[in-house]
Formats: sequence, C-alpha cells, structure tokens
Amino acid sequence: MRQQVDIFDSTLRDGAQAEGISFSVEDKLKIVKTLDKLGVTYIEAGNPFSNPKDIEFFDRVKRVTLQNAKLVAFGSTRRRNTKVEEDKNILSLLSTDTPAVAIFGKSWDFHVTEVIKTTLEENLNMIRDSIAFFKARGKETIFDAEHFFDGYKSNPKYAMSALKAAADAGADCLVLCDTNGACFPQEIYDIVKTVKNTFNNVTIGIHTHNDCGMAVANSIMAFEAGATHIQGTFTGFGERCGNANLSTIIPNLQLKRNVRCIPDENLKNLTYTARKISEIANVSLNARDPYVGNSAFAHKGGMHIDGVCKAPSSFEHIDPTLVGNKRRFLMSEVAGRNTVLEKIREIYPNVEKESQETENIIQRLKELEHQGYQFEGAESTFELVIRKQLGKYKPFFELETFKLMTEQTSNSKPSASALIKVKVDGRSEITAAEGNGPVHALDRALRKALEVFYPELQNVHLTDFKVRVIDSNKATAAKVRVLIESTDGESVWTTVGVSTDIIEASWIALVDSIEYKLLKELEKKIKVYL
Amino acid sequence: MRQQVDIFDSTLRDGAQAEGISFSVEDKLKIVKTLDKLGVTYIEAGNPFSNPKDIEFFDRVKRVTLQNAKLVAFGSTRRRNTKVEEDKNILSLLSTDTPAVAIFGKSWDFHVTEVIKTTLEENLNMIRDSIAFFKARGKETIFDAEHFFDGYKSNPKYAMSALKAAADAGADCLVLCDTNGACFPQEIYDIVKTVKNTFNNVTIGIHTHNDCGMAVANSIMAFEAGATHIQGTFTGFGERCGNANLSTIIPNLQLKRNVRCIPDENLKNLTYTARKISEIANVSLNARDPYVGNSAFAHKGGMHIDGVCKAPSSFEHIDPTLVGNKRRFLMSEVAGRNTVLEKIREIYPNVEKESQETENIIQRLKELEHQGYQFEGAESTFELVIRKQLGKYKPFFELETFKLMTEQTSNSKPSASALIKVKVDGRSEITAAEGNGPVHALDRALRKALEVFYPELQNVHLTDFKVRVIDSNKATAAKVRVLIESTDGESVWTTVGVSTDIIEASWIALVDSIEYKLLKELEKKIKVYL
Repeated sequence: MRQQVDIFDSTLRDGAQAEGISFSVEDKLKIVKTLDKLGVTYIEAGNPFSNPKDIEFFDRVKRVTLQNAKLVAFGSTRRRNTKVEEDKNILSLLSTDTPAVAIFGKSWDFHVTEVIKTTLEENLNMIRDSIAFFKARGKETIFDAEHFFDGYKSNPKYAMSALKAAADAGADCLVLCDTNGACFPQEIYDIVKTVKNTFNNVTIGIHTHNDCGMAVANSIMAFEAGATHIQGTFTGFGERCGNANLSTIIPNLQLKRNVRCIPDENLKNLTYTARKISEIANVSLNARDPYVGNSAFAHKGGMHIDGVCKAPSSFEHIDPTLVGNKRRFLMSEVAGRNTVLEKIREIYPNVEKESQETENIIQRLKELEHQGYQFEGAESTFELVIRKQLGKYKPFFELETFKLMTEQTSNSKPSASALIKVKVDGRSEITAAEGNGPVHALDRALRKALEVFYPELQNVHLTDFKVRVIDSNKATAAKVRVLIESTDGESVWTTVGVSTDIIEASWIALVDSIEYKLLKELEKKIKVYL
Repeated sequence: MRQQVDIFDSTLRDGAQAEGISFSVEDKLKIVKTLDKLGVTYIEAGNPFSNPKDIEFFDRVKRVTLQNAKLVAFGSTRRRNTKVEEDKNILSLLSTDTPAVAIFGKSWDFHVTEVIKTTLEENLNMIRDSIAFFKARGKETIFDAEHFFDGYKSNPKYAMSALKAAADAGADCLVLCDTNGACFPQEIYDIVKTVKNTFNNVTIGIHTHNDCGMAVANSIMAFEAGATHIQGTFTGFGERCGNANLSTIIPNLQLKRNVRCIPDENLKNLTYTARKISEIANVSLNARDPYVGNSAFAHKGGMHIDGVCKAPSSFEHIDPTLVGNKRRFLMSEVAGRNTVLEKIREIYPNVEKESQETENIIQRLKELEHQGYQFEGAESTFELVIRKQLGKYKPFFELETFKLMTEQTSNSKPSASALIKVKVDGRSEITAAEGNGPVHALDRALRKALEVFYPELQNVHLTDFKVRVIDSNKATAAKVRVLIESTDGESVWTTVGVSTDIIEASWIALVDSIEYKLLKELEKKIKVYL
C-alpha cells in the first residue's frame, strides 16, 4: 500500500509568530480556504486564548465547509495547580468546536522547573489531565511535546515520560518539536527512531524550526525514522528563522518518495498556493524557494541552458510543471508557450497553440512582465490583457482628465483632493472628492463619477491595497507595483498596475478593477458575451 | 586535535549564476577582501574563459595581498579530442596565476554521452590530462565531479572511475557535487562514506545545491561521513534555488561541533560579512536567514519573550553575539525597559534606568510603534526621536507650505510637480521641481530649496525607498510606512515615516533624512554637540 503522511499546516498559528506577519480575520479565512483546496490534512488555525482576534475567527470559520482538511485549535496544557475543567485556556479551546485540538506541553525538565516553575510530577499531571479532558469529549487530540529534542538530550527519561503521560491519556498523535531549531539531521533520526520503537501504537509527528537551516531535512529524516505526521508552515513563515517549509516538504516526499501528502491532482497547484499565501501575508516569496520560487527553475549559465535543452533532467531535478512552476531561461527569450497557453485557454478554450493570436498574447505578456507586472496574484488584469489582445474588449469609460492636489502647511496635515472628468457613450461627467492621500481621493472621485452611469458600482469597494517597490535602489524614482483587491460583496478580484509613479500605477489598477466588474456584470446580462 | 574543515567560497563563481546577481570587477574585489578578512580557506573567483570581465578581475586581484585565503580559478577539463596544452580554457586558467585551480568534469555517464557527446573513456582521459597538467605546473588542483551523486545512483562504477582518474593524476581534493540539488541527506551520507573509504589518501569535498531545501543539511551529512572540504556561497546565492549557505554551515560546525572553519575570533564578524556581501550584491538579505538574518533572534510571542527573559537558552539555540547578531523583542509593550534602555545608551550613555527621561522616551516609542512605526531598520529616526524627547534637538528648517500637483489626461502620462516654501533662520526660499510621481517631485524640490542654505546637501541622495501598507485591508485609506535610505557617499542612514497618506509618510521620512545629515555635519564641526 502506498505510504501516506498527514500534513499539519501551522501557517496561521506558528507562522503568525513571524516578524512582519499580521493576519486579519479575513486573511485567515482566505488562507483556510486556500489550504483546504490544496488538500492538507490539518489546519492549525490559532490560539483562541492568547489572541482575541482568533475568537472572532473561530466563530466565523464555523460557517465555512471544508473539503479536505480538519481545523485544529491550539493551546497549552492546563495551568499548574488548576483543575482542568476550570482552566480558562482549556475551556476556550473547547468552545472553538473544532474536530481536533493540539495541546502543547513541556518535555524538557529545565523548562518545567525554570520557565513554568512547577514540579516534574505536576507537569506530567498537567499533560495527562489536559489530553484526557479532550479525549473524553470526543476530540482528536494531538500532543505537541515542546522542546522534545533538547529535553531528550538533557534528560531522556523525563522527556519520554512526558510522551508516556500523553499516550496513556489517549493522545492520537505525539509530536516531537525541535522548538529552538537546534538539532542536526542524524540526531533527529536517532531520537525519532527510539520514540517510534517505544510508542508503536500511536502516530508520531515532527515539528521543526529552521535556526540551523535544516528544518526541511530534519523533517525528512524524522519521516525516514517513522514519523507520519509532519508540521510546518507555508512558505516557512515562523518565529526567528521560521518553521519547516511545507511547500518544500510536500513535493520532496510526494515526488521523490511516492508518499501521499496531498491529493496527487493538487500538486500542480502548489506554486499557486505558496504565492497566494505570500500575497495574503503581504510578504515577497523568496525567489530561490525550492519548487515554488520564481527562480527555482531559472537557468542562467550558458552551459546549463544548453544542457537543459538537450535533456531537461541534466540540470533540473524534477519537471517544474509537476508543481505548477515553470522553467525560465534568463538570458535567452525562450519562454514556455505551453504554460501561457494553458492559462489563455482557461478564458478562451478555442485558442490554438501556433496561431498569431497566441503569439501576440505571449509577446504582450513578456513586455508587461519585463516592465514589472506579475499576474499570479492578479488574474483579473490577466484576463483583461488577453481580451484586449484578442480584440474582445471595449472600455466602459474614457478618462478626459484628472488633477490631484496635495497641500501641506507648517501646522496642518496634508489635504488631498481629486478632480476628475470621465466620458461614457459621449456624455461627460465631472466631479471631485477628498481622501486620505492622493490615491484615496482619486479612487473616491472616479467611482463617484462612474456611479452616475453604472449604479452597480455602488456596491464595489476596495478591500486591499498593496504597494511593492520593484527596483528599490532607484529610491523615489523606482518602479512600484500596486495590487488592488476589490469586492462587490459576492466575488473578489485583484488587479495590478506598474509605473515609476505610484499615482499612475494605482490608476491603472483602479481602472482595471472597475472595468473588470463592469465586464462581469455585462456577461451576466448577456450570458454569452462573445 | 581539533577537527578542521576547509571552507571553499564560490560566491563569485556559482553565486554569480543567481538570477539578479551581476558583480562588477569592483564588487568582486570588495568581496574577495571581505571573505579573506573573515578567513575562509579558498575563494573561487571566476572562470576566466567564460567571462571576459573575469580576465580584468584576475589581472587586478594580483595586486591584492590576502591574509587567509587562497584564490582559485575555475574551469572545465580539456575539450574532447584536444591536446591539453592547446586547450584555450586550460591555458586561460593557467594564465590567472592563482595558487589553486578547480577543474570540473563529468562523472555521470548520461552527461558524457548525451550532453558533451563523447565516449566514456575519452571523458576519463580528459579528467586525467587536465588534472595532471596543473599538478605538473605546481598548482593545488581541486577536482569538481559534476553531478556526482546522480551519476553514482545511475552508474556507481563509472562515477567512481571518474574520481579515480582525477586521484591517479594527483588531484589534491575530490569534490562530490549534487549539481541538481536532488539528493536526500541519508543518500549523501552513504555515498560520501563509500567514497571516503575508497579514496582515503585524498581530501573529500562536498558541493550541494538547494533544490530540495536541504543543501546545508546535506553538507553537514557529508561532513559526518568524512568530507573535510565544504563548498558553498554567501548567503546561499546561486543558480535556481541557490548553493549551500556558508553563513549557516560555518556556525553550525564551529559552534555546535567545535570544528574550525574560520579563525574563532572572526566568528563574531559573520553577520557583518553576510550583510556586507548582500549589500555589494544589491540584494536584501532574507530576514529569516539562520544566524545572520535580522529576524534570526527576534521574539514575538509573549510566552517566548517571557521564556527568553528567564533563561535565554529556552528559546535561543545560541547566544546571538557569538555570530555578531543580536536578540530583538518585537512587541515593545512586552519588550521591557532593559532592551530599550540599551539602545538609548548607545546614543546617551548617561541616561538612567529609572529616570523620568527614560520613562518619557519609552512612552513616546510605544506611541510611535502603536502608530505603525518600526525602528529596527531606521536607527536614524530612532536617534532623532530620542533627541527630541530629551530636548537636545533644534530643527534645521521649517516648512511653510508645499503643494503637489499631478495631472493626467486621456492621452498623456501623469505629470507630477511640487512647489515648496521653506524657512531657515528667518529667511524664506520658494522653489519647484518635477519628478516621476509626487514623492520624487517633493524630494527634489525640498533638496533644491535647502541647498541654498546647506550646500553640503548636494552630495546627499536617496538609495532606497520602501513602502509597506500596514493595515492593507483598509485599501487606499490604509496606513503606509515609508522607509528611506540615504547616502552622502560615505555613510548610509535610514529614516521612517508613517501616515494614512503616502505623501505625508514620505515627507516625514524625507525630513528626518535631511535633519539627520545636517545634525551629523554639525556634530563633526563642533565635536561635542551636547
């Protein structure tokens, strides 16, 4: 039978501990849906006790139906010298109503006596009581043995007794954590092996951190030693140096060891998933990230490009399309027509590979990417580009002019206002609006002018606005990429604009956002637009 | 005797294959000096045959005296069916006059027949001839067995015969390359062990790539199996997913296995070295990079901060100062007075912990952080905040007013212009400038106006401009944080501004940038400013 591991994603919990990461409730819901679609087994979604935002999240997520994943709430064992039924943390975990809980407890004697300051015996009781509490209430219960490896190296007997307390109380999984990220691969292998031999009736899990740059390898070594539950985050987010990167571990095991981590048919969505989660977190995905990074299959050296042309396997360890990524030749303009074609066909199934139309679209996309556009997170702009190129597009309005003014004096905040004049079907409309800064004023003025013609725009508002400086060493003359996410309350769409001028970049993305909405309204009305 | 490994840095050769990296000759010379100062054993500096820029480099580097490192030129074995003495590549390597050369050759039968298209026997001759040629001329000769692991897995006998050809010809070191980055740690260990047992009189080296996210771990496993020569790059630069990261491997071995990689007293310069090389390469160092990243010892979770305060080793695998990095507490509400006090004392050594002054500064910092300020990357603004709070600050100019205008019509790009009026010592100056967007225009106008009073500003220009949307789900009304890096050609300083209006945020950071420069000029003039 094919081997299988449970992938336990902690992006929303341990990942949220990373510097610079702050998820809104909206963000968390989006990530839950994205991970469920990819098909991980568990989604650890937060700690309802430590974070008031998570209370709202757990309430709202109840209305989300998951196809693949189980939601997990995370919290600690009961406090010392407290009855488990009266422990507020334990009760808040129960109230989340998730099918599974992850309970962390101490397994390093030093932490018991020096950090939580209790007796070694009371710590074992805390573990036992907490696990038993959730098992008695029908929850799948995962025990995270914090600092297990450091604990084992310092006092193996005590570390094992912490696991035993959890196992005796009925824990479904014992997760061995390298909390400080200090372990070497061989140590991980040997210790996991010993644990596996001792507890052979319970699932063994692994949770590693990247402080020695070996979190992925350590997870793999734990798997080789018998762990079948792997914790990590997309794309390695986490406190300090981050957690084990699931976007590396999943393809490592699934493609190279034939171990099922997620449904096979979803593996090709891995790159998309990693990039989407990075977008939601508003961090740039490291270009060199294995499998999913923008450079992961980028070839620059002449000999390498030559080798890959003769035989791809000469300098590529896998076919990049297996994970939804693509080969890139950095010096020559030999782009992947097939990849682009596949995307075009999502919109126009009839387009042919060798046609002039396809050629024109590819040329246009190359030009735009060269200018700094990026379409992974901006499918709506991508669709509009293709339509424009195919001549299947007529603008819903024309700009006649806009003027933005910002004024600041010694003792005032700056005031921003926008004047705009647009034309629809020969009729002009001129109006003005104020805002927090020029882009906000422009956004308001544009929608105010267009609502005269298109009342359906009244429901549209922007939900996200991101600015990324592309070549930041050119300072204020650098190029910026603006991503705008909009909603009408039902659907959500994202558009992108690039310019050396942040105003122009925002304008491009704003226009696309509105054009896209009006296009979809029109499509609804006439069913078949083409 | 203490164990020792040779660190072989390939930042200038394999690292230069990375997407987005392009070293000038000047850059390469700076990196050579930086690496030599750190104390690596070998610096692989380029391939004089493939890259004309490298010819100039090898010429100029002859005038640089190195304290610790040996320079290595890199090239391939002679071409098939060519006399080694007549091979242009071989001769160009010889002409570099470096004490050592690294020669790469094929060890995977598939590559011999399918990529370089010659016979298996001729390939062995190519290796033998090339190594013997350099040994006869007194060069230390390192053999890089390209694709060794893939070759060994496909045809172990042939892969070993390639090594034997090199060893027989006198190679000083046999380097086993995981060129495609496809190997798992246990495989690396087993294969290196076999090679080590077969060739016990020659140094065994390891060269890994990060396509499976395990380059560091694979290097460590090779070391555990007997490799004593480790190749990699600072900070993992390299084609596709990059090479093994030496800024991780060095402290892993030196701090955790007591293996000498560089002189012990230089380890504390590791963070500086990694950041400097990133600066020269003009790429941002990944904040999560082990040991040297800005977040490597950053704690955010309340329980973690509490643990570290009780006992640093509870959530830190090493003392960050050992590698020249520092601990950071990200939530200043929890960060505690000591951390902030330490920072204040860098500027004002006499401030007392329990004083009202300290209390006021901490309150002010908390307010600003709550507004979205972040001082980790903006020490200059931090210094100005402290000075203002202590009353040790007088502004160098006053703004009377600025007006920004952006105008766009249907068929033009937007045009941005700024009008500004400032006052210095009662004298006003009004002027205007255009730019790519309003911030660029404002930056130009402000400096134009102030240069009338402060000619020293003529050398100042911005080198980096970053925009981060803080609560991006509020869309265009969201708060933005603008970070500006400036230079006068000698020093570099960074300032920060936060506002819901990108113009105001940029203005705040611009003003701080100029105030800071004028303050430092003044300090130079009067030596003791206070």
